[in-house]
Amino acid sequence: MRILSGIQPSGTLHIGNYFGAIKRIIESQNQGELFAFIASYHALTSVKDKEVLEQNTFEATVNFLALGMDPQKATFWVQHHVKEVLELYWLLSNHTSMGLLERAHSYKDKTARGIQANHGLFSYPVLMAADILLFDSQIVPVGKDQIQHVEIARDIATSINHTYKQDLFVLPQSKVDEVLATVPGTDGAKMSKSYGNTIDMFNTKKKIKKQVMGIVTDSRELEEAKEWENCNIYKLCELFMNDEELKELQTRYETPGEGYGHFKLTLLDKMTEYFAPYQERREHLLANPKEVHEILAYGASKASKVAVEKMRVLRDVVGLI
Amino acid sequence: MRILSGIQPSGTLHIGNYFGAIKRIIESQNQGELFAFIASYHALTSVKDKEVLEQNTFEATVNFLALGMDPQKATFWVQHHVKEVLELYWLLSNHTSMGLLERAHSYKDKTARGIQANHGLFSYPVLMAADILLFDSQIVPVGKDQIQHVEIARDIATSINHTYKQDLFVLPQSKVDEVLATVPGTDGAKMSKSYGNTIDMFNTKKKIKKQVMGIVTDSRELEEAKEWENCNIYKLCELFMNDEELKELQTRYETPGEGYGHFKLTLLDKMTEYFAPYQERREHLLANPKEVHEILAYGASKASKVAVEKMRVLRDVVGLI
Repeated sequence: MRILSGIQPSGTLHIGNYFGAIKRIIESQNQGELFAFIASYHALTSVKDKEVLEQNTFEATVNFLALGMDPQKATFWVQHHVKEVLELYWLLSNHTSMGLLERAHSYKDKTARGIQANHGLFSYPVLMAADILLFDSQIVPVGKDQIQHVEIARDIATSINHTYKQDLFVLPQSKVDEVLATVPGTDGAKMSKSYGNTIDMFNTKKKIKKQVMGIVTDSRELEEAKEWENCNIYKLCELFMNDEELKELQTRYETPGEGYGHFKLTLLDKMTEYFAPYQERREHLLANPKEVHEILAYGASKASKVAVEKMRVLRDVVGLI
Repeated sequence: MRILSGIQPSGTLHIGNYFGAIKRIIESQNQGELFAFIASYHALTSVKDKEVLEQNTFEATVNFLALGMDPQKATFWVQHHVKEVLELYWLLSNHTSMGLLERAHSYKDKTARGIQANHGLFSYPVLMAADILLFDSQIVPVGKDQIQHVEIARDIATSINHTYKQDLFVLPQSKVDEVLATVPGTDGAKMSKSYGNTIDMFNTKKKIKKQVMGIVTDSRELEEAKEWENCNIYKLCELFMNDEELKELQTRYETPGEGYGHFKLTLLDKMTEYFAPYQERREHLLANPKEVHEILAYGASKASKVAVEKMRVLRDVVGLI
């Protein structure tokens, strides 16, 4: 089973990113043949700054490697290192009806939010279809907002298979993980950069401590018993503690004598402990960019093998001698 | 001065194609640094048949070489042999406002004529902009219907130059040849495949003779004097005869005793004589496809040198490390 995941190279990661998506992507390398790429071409639809794009691409790569992406198990590359995807994008364009793109919610939503309506943004689903179809992907894990894009990829693939009377493309299936944990932010709402309620994964100790200490709680005093059920601190602790540790924490909540500050420090300790090996590996990679580039070159060569062969067949079928 | 010409790989050529456009393209190799390519990627917007695309691409190449395209003087290649153009196409897409494309006449005209509105057709001007800008083209000779596309290329180039605060692109100028000869067809209207009034350049003798003998004239008899001024045969003879020969032909028109059939045969002779060396070279090339492919490989390597260097600079500027 071949699984495809595209990774937007964005800035600083928070633990909502990790438990909401990244962890799952990385774990999928044990469930099938994972093809995962840093979506640098897609990023160009919104990032028009060299430094930002370079930095984000490098950071995203380092973060995924630090968090356990295994370049031996998975095929892990940066999108623009395998340029075949753009040739497929052009081939697909000629079999993509304009109506299909005009009906895409994501484009309509983005332009409604005031994002500039450029042609890259509009044709994003065609490039995504190329990402998917180039690697004969069977499963594409996506958020609900992306289901339509996988359907568009299926539609285009079906149309080309029909035109050239051959099963040229595997028809991909989207996979939406319904049981996906929604990680609460420091104010209890869904953790999101746009709400300003995040706890960063990789940042200075001081900054992370400040975020954790800012978690919103009720105002019970030290000498009162406390409720763990709806406490934001406790909910976050659930991400890092096993059952035994959680039981112990419940007892501390119910026993007067400790304040929320104590629980926050417990959370901070557990978090720090949990991410310590990743943090260490991350620092190693940041200090050794050459190693990162070698890993990416290896990934690109693995992805290229599949892409080059696929395009060889397709070029022959459409008549590009 | 760098001149760019894209050549649609279409079927059989007629003498209207030649005197209307091809001759001028080929002559421009003596007026500047000509970059000319067979537009195979563009052809995909309408051609969905392997054999047709392969055949048309090969034929167009052979025809241009036979008619005098000099791969030493000009850079002459098949579009899809220099894939950098698609990467530039994607870069440009992210700086192309949708309004710019929605206002393109050519797309509106084509869809109004019932051509399927696919995304390739819609984004055609962006690919054309990439063709132009990749090679720092200064002059783009075009028909009137394509002026807007060169303007779109200028707009996109200006926008990117502005965003990245560098003169990354040369701003191209379109050049419309106003004195362009309109070649009359066998019925006197403009020669065009869609009017069915063409005289083919390269076809069987029998077929060409049939087309010439079908030229429409008035019905004056052998023993009457004839008017050459508005005669379709005479107008076509102007393409192939020098002043002296034309004077002589005028005398024949004015002297009773010859019929239109005689003049048609004179035209046929002159045409055959005019195209004979091209015809010969064409047959040589058709019989030696390996030679054609070597010429194209040479052209692709010349074009690649420019394209690869241009993309190296651009990738660095936008942050695709």
